[in-house]
Amino acid sequence: MEPVLEHLDADECLRLISPGGVGRLAYSGRYGLTVFPVNYQMLDGSVVFRTAEYSPTDEDLRTGMPAAEYDVAFEVDSVDEAAREGWSVLIHGPAHHMDTLTEHGQAMQTGVEPWAGGERAHAIRITPHRISGRRIRRRG
Amino acid sequence: MEPVLEHLDADECLRLISPGGVGRLAYSGRYGLTVFPVNYQMLDGSVVFRTAEYSPTDEDLRTGMPAAEYDVAFEVDSVDEAAREGWSVLIHGPAHHMDTLTEHGQAMQTGVEPWAGGERAHAIRITPHRISGRRIRRRG
Repeated sequence: MEPVLEHLDADECLRLISPGGVGRLAYSGRYGLTVFPVNYQMLDGSVVFRTAEYSPTDEDLRTGMPAAEYDVAFEVDSVDEAAREGWSVLIHGPAHHMDTLTEHGQAMQTGVEPWAGGERAHAIRITPHRISGRRIRRRG
Repeated sequence: MEPVLEHLDADECLRLISPGGVGRLAYSGRYGLTVFPVNYQMLDGSVVFRTAEYSPTDEDLRTGMPAAEYDVAFEVDSVDEAAREGWSVLIHGPAHHMDTLTEHGQAMQTGVEPWAGGERAHAIRITPHRISGRRIRRRG
């Protein structure tokens, strides 16, 4: 069976990642490129995840300038190794700290839970400025 | 149950990723930060994956200088969302193109298959210069 590589448009990418789950946050930080898994949920087309206040992640993503937001990437995929099918979606956008009470309430309403557990009272929202994705299918 | 965050040493990280499987390659490329899943296998402590010759990935990771190698990150994780346990490992190192016949033979001997299928005759090896990892466990 020949694999078929298909590029996905933004709507299809958003549809694929809409159930939430585990994605990988990636950014260029103090110690080079950082990539790690977080639980996320979608909120009005944005990705929301939780971290601990003053954690390395929180601090990495603060530039010290109130108006500036840190550009990050967020990757979600689903790979079926046996069938050799799957898709992956990559989002680029600024990481916004949901610091106001209203924003914090919105984040909690998504039901997003940090898989790493703990307090992790701090929520971060990534607003997609660019979305790309691809899917690989078998043609019988 | 309280989650316990544990930092993993390099030996434990290498042990966790030794079976191979799916990892995420991340690098700073022409269009910003790129992150996508690849199938990998280990070869003498290095990560090996396949891509197509002259693919965007192949070209992204060539600097045009024969002696230089492109620095990339490679992330592998295993997250149990229900149990909220899991681990993640992050490798940093140069991406070496396994261009000689000897190297190509070594890559094929690992049995690494590209989940994306297709020809993908080109193999790339990432030699870890830095390895970090963490594990989250529940304490009953």
